[in-house]
Amino acid sequence: MAKRVAVILSGCGVYDGTEVHEASAILVHLSRAGAKVQMFAPNADQMHVVNHCEGKPTEEKRNILQESARIARGEVTDLAKLDVSAFDAAIIPGGFGVAKNLSDWAVKNKDCAIQPNVEKVIKDFHKAGKPLGMCCIAPILAGKILPGCELTVGQDKQCDKWPYAQTAGALKDLGCKHVNKDVEEVHVDAKNKLVTTSAFMCNAPIHKVYDGIGVMVKETLKLA
Amino acid sequence: MAKRVAVILSGCGVYDGTEVHEASAILVHLSRAGAKVQMFAPNADQMHVVNHCEGKPTEEKRNILQESARIARGEVTDLAKLDVSAFDAAIIPGGFGVAKNLSDWAVKNKDCAIQPNVEKVIKDFHKAGKPLGMCCIAPILAGKILPGCELTVGQDKQCDKWPYAQTAGALKDLGCKHVNKDVEEVHVDAKNKLVTTSAFMCNAPIHKVYDGIGVMVKETLKLA
Repeated sequence: MAKRVAVILSGCGVYDGTEVHEASAILVHLSRAGAKVQMFAPNADQMHVVNHCEGKPTEEKRNILQESARIARGEVTDLAKLDVSAFDAAIIPGGFGVAKNLSDWAVKNKDCAIQPNVEKVIKDFHKAGKPLGMCCIAPILAGKILPGCELTVGQDKQCDKWPYAQTAGALKDLGCKHVNKDVEEVHVDAKNKLVTTSAFMCNAPIHKVYDGIGVMVKETLKLA
Repeated sequence: MAKRVAVILSGCGVYDGTEVHEASAILVHLSRAGAKVQMFAPNADQMHVVNHCEGKPTEEKRNILQESARIARGEVTDLAKLDVSAFDAAIIPGGFGVAKNLSDWAVKNKDCAIQPNVEKVIKDFHKAGKPLGMCCIAPILAGKILPGCELTVGQDKQCDKWPYAQTAGALKDLGCKHVNKDVEEVHVDAKNKLVTTSAFMCNAPIHKVYDGIGVMVKETLKLA
């Protein structure tokens, strides 16, 4: 039986949505594993729209679901309609959309609120004993909702290779255990069925990000 | 010595820009091969903006370079600045952006005009004996500029698996030789140093598209 996996998007573009290469890697690895995939995103306005050449917000408005459809080639469903009983696992790629559209972490850090549909989905998968795979900044969602869980966002000491290492400290402040891992590795919290990998939290060549996500997908499917 | 490869983008999203998974696959395979990559796109307005949930144009305006920066994580250069002498090869992913922003094929088919910077780049690489890799609909650019060349866009008989097979006929009308290939295969026109693969011209699982693009990248680098 093919494993049924929900992939949760948050727009299209690293600075205001889903990181497109993380999403793409997830879809390629799931496809190779024979999983049956359905993509979801909130039907709501993005926190803001960033000019990705300049890294600065613009005056535009864009809808998270419509922009996610650029990654999903049109095949994306309103997250409010996600029925946990129809899936064996969920995977959430990173990108600042996680911290701007799926939560307000980007402005409130560990005091953030999680978008209600996202919070419900994570709680429901966890309660049902179904695994969640997350990469890059997405583990903050589990860290906020499931205090005490074990996660990785890569390394906890900042350097050229790990420019966002302070995120590990924020997860510890939430009461989670942060486990240092390299970009091609994952951490598996077997008790909570959480599989996490750093992806673009690491300043690494893109094929290493792709490979780390491959391990994340494989370990998530193993738990499903 | 690392091979230097220019990747030419046309926006971000299959229906009005670059197909994001084709671009991502190209970048992963180039990274694994140790190539040095620089991304380029025209600094101009898109032909139009498509709501990717509905597949319909909207009233919005978007800039091709800025939208391409969503794929390039900010690191994309105006195509007008591409200096062919600084590169060993160029690769152009597909998506309707090729037929709307790099040319007007989407409205004029084989009577299309090619965007002047794109035409110059393709002619200059060809004249310099440097290879061009193209996938999906991108081979139409070479077909228009280099009549008599050999290309594949997959298969020339329409069916569920090959919904865009009429493109092969249009290439023949341009005086090119179309070679039928499956999604995991490429055609190499050794004389013209053109490497083409169907990618999402085929209704195939995404990992097969990824693998076909891997062969395209490998054969392009071999000719560089």
